[in-house]
Amino acid sequence: MQYVVGIDIGGTSIKAGILTEEGELIAKTEIPTRKGPEGQEIFEDLKCLVEKFLGDAGLEQETLSGIGIAVPGAVRGRRVVNRCANLNWGIIDVAEAMEARLPGIPIVVLNDANAAAYGEAWKGSQQVARNMVMVTLGTGVGGGVIVDGKVVEGAFGGAGEIGHLYAGGDVPCNCGNRGCLEKYASATGIARMAALELAKDPSYDGILRRKAEASRDASGKVEKGDEPNNRLDAKAVFDALKAGDPLAQRVAEDFGEKLGTALAQVACVVDPEVFVIGGGVSKAGECLLDYIRKPYREHAFHVSKDTEFRIASLGNDAGTYGAAWAACNRMEP
Amino acid sequence: MQYVVGIDIGGTSIKAGILTEEGELIAKTEIPTRKGPEGQEIFEDLKCLVEKFLGDAGLEQETLSGIGIAVPGAVRGRRVVNRCANLNWGIIDVAEAMEARLPGIPIVVLNDANAAAYGEAWKGSQQVARNMVMVTLGTGVGGGVIVDGKVVEGAFGGAGEIGHLYAGGDVPCNCGNRGCLEKYASATGIARMAALELAKDPSYDGILRRKAEASRDASGKVEKGDEPNNRLDAKAVFDALKAGDPLAQRVAEDFGEKLGTALAQVACVVDPEVFVIGGGVSKAGECLLDYIRKPYREHAFHVSKDTEFRIASLGNDAGTYGAAWAACNRMEP
Repeated sequence: MQYVVGIDIGGTSIKAGILTEEGELIAKTEIPTRKGPEGQEIFEDLKCLVEKFLGDAGLEQETLSGIGIAVPGAVRGRRVVNRCANLNWGIIDVAEAMEARLPGIPIVVLNDANAAAYGEAWKGSQQVARNMVMVTLGTGVGGGVIVDGKVVEGAFGGAGEIGHLYAGGDVPCNCGNRGCLEKYASATGIARMAALELAKDPSYDGILRRKAEASRDASGKVEKGDEPNNRLDAKAVFDALKAGDPLAQRVAEDFGEKLGTALAQVACVVDPEVFVIGGGVSKAGECLLDYIRKPYREHAFHVSKDTEFRIASLGNDAGTYGAAWAACNRMEP
Repeated sequence: MQYVVGIDIGGTSIKAGILTEEGELIAKTEIPTRKGPEGQEIFEDLKCLVEKFLGDAGLEQETLSGIGIAVPGAVRGRRVVNRCANLNWGIIDVAEAMEARLPGIPIVVLNDANAAAYGEAWKGSQQVARNMVMVTLGTGVGGGVIVDGKVVEGAFGGAGEIGHLYAGGDVPCNCGNRGCLEKYASATGIARMAALELAKDPSYDGILRRKAEASRDASGKVEKGDEPNNRLDAKAVFDALKAGDPLAQRVAEDFGEKLGTALAQVACVVDPEVFVIGGGVSKAGECLLDYIRKPYREHAFHVSKDTEFRIASLGNDAGTYGAAWAACNRMEP
């Protein structure tokens, strides 16, 4: 049997899975993203990851028909990344870098949110939607636009760059612009907004107090990658929101206002059947959608006001599935 | 030989052309748009228009293989319009209304900006662009998004509704929302902004004085549909702009800021090779593009900053060509 490896490089961690060509997930793993000044460390880490991963699974390299790599940036020719600000990458031929390290294995590179969209369309709950928009809320905000069953890549690889829709204001973004949506709707954007709210009332300690309590309650059962700390992260904000915290509620309203308004813009361009919300922030669940829907309905064109919103059914694995899908040579030329 | 009729219904006038199936324009005509309370008068006018048009051209009705009708609203199933606020239409089966009046002639209905996009792609200078966005600046603002050579229609017929992108502010739009782009970037929007500027300084008479002078200079040579009047319309604003009028310049800057920012949003979604600017306002020519490009570049994602802008080569006839193209049964199912 032939296998493929799907790799999803995020700003915080690298997720990888071994899948059959039919899309069955055999094994998965996750390592932290090591970001050096040039971002080259990642390629060494990927080589080690793939070799160890195959070894642990008892698979020979010959059984591997390809590797798909999803990256958080615009991709040209399914090989070359045109800047990933969150990884300190400029223009880099990722396929070449990996082919040099893992000779003989075909490599295909694609945008991470496009990968997530393909993943959801392949193995998620969105298998029926011919027209959908995938939104990944992680370290940044990504988007994958599917029209007639195919991801729109754009003339310069910039289609679906929903995180860089102008959402107002002048907060500088890693991309060089100001006021990009991902400064408000990503995990880091949510933490940034919470810190700003907290700065207005430094005596308020609700969110971090709740986080510390929850951490104690878990009595040592700490989720992987979520070591106890007093960082005001997006998870802490949404946990506090569920507990009725008023500051978290203000942050969620700002988040929803920016994201809902931006997705109403997206609907004016491609008018999808469904918006699928994925990425780490989507772990907060259905409660997110209520904050997005209201401003969305306010600004969406009348025919699109009732467009459906769903949480990604593959959760944070959608990108891994989609990268594996691409590695199966399923992308049209 | 077989012919088709392409009809482009605008908020101000109805344009029509007789074309061969190869896209050669044999004859064209234009009548004012008659807007009653229900908008039904238009169908009677269209029937008379087609009959007289064929008669004048010496063609039998049997030589007509179809009629394409472009309308300024979202269209479902190539027959039914889901509201045209600028025509006072609700949900209307336009194909049925016309089939009842012109029995035996196949009718296809499509969105006007989508028609303009098909027209430019068929017979305009954009025949090579597989990925383009057409923007029509007329009574309203329309958009046609072409991905891989095909217009994106959207799940609910709302794709390419660029005129209803949220551009800020709370000016009410005919569509029911507030702050829509067409309140700033359409011919009527431009006139509205000029009137607001003028209200700030009622003693200023530059634009209308220039218009009156130009009208006198033309010594009776009045362009069809442009009878002498003292209305502060978009043409007067752009004529004054070319003569260096400072008020017209402020209006053009506001126009460009709103449109350029909105098109940067569009580029984040579909990343076209080229934006083609058509519709009545585009008669102002290349000078428009300078006002659009600067804010576009400021807000566009880095890979799309150098995307080309062009004035539609078919000018205001693009919609007629595209409607004729659709009538040739060239639209995929």
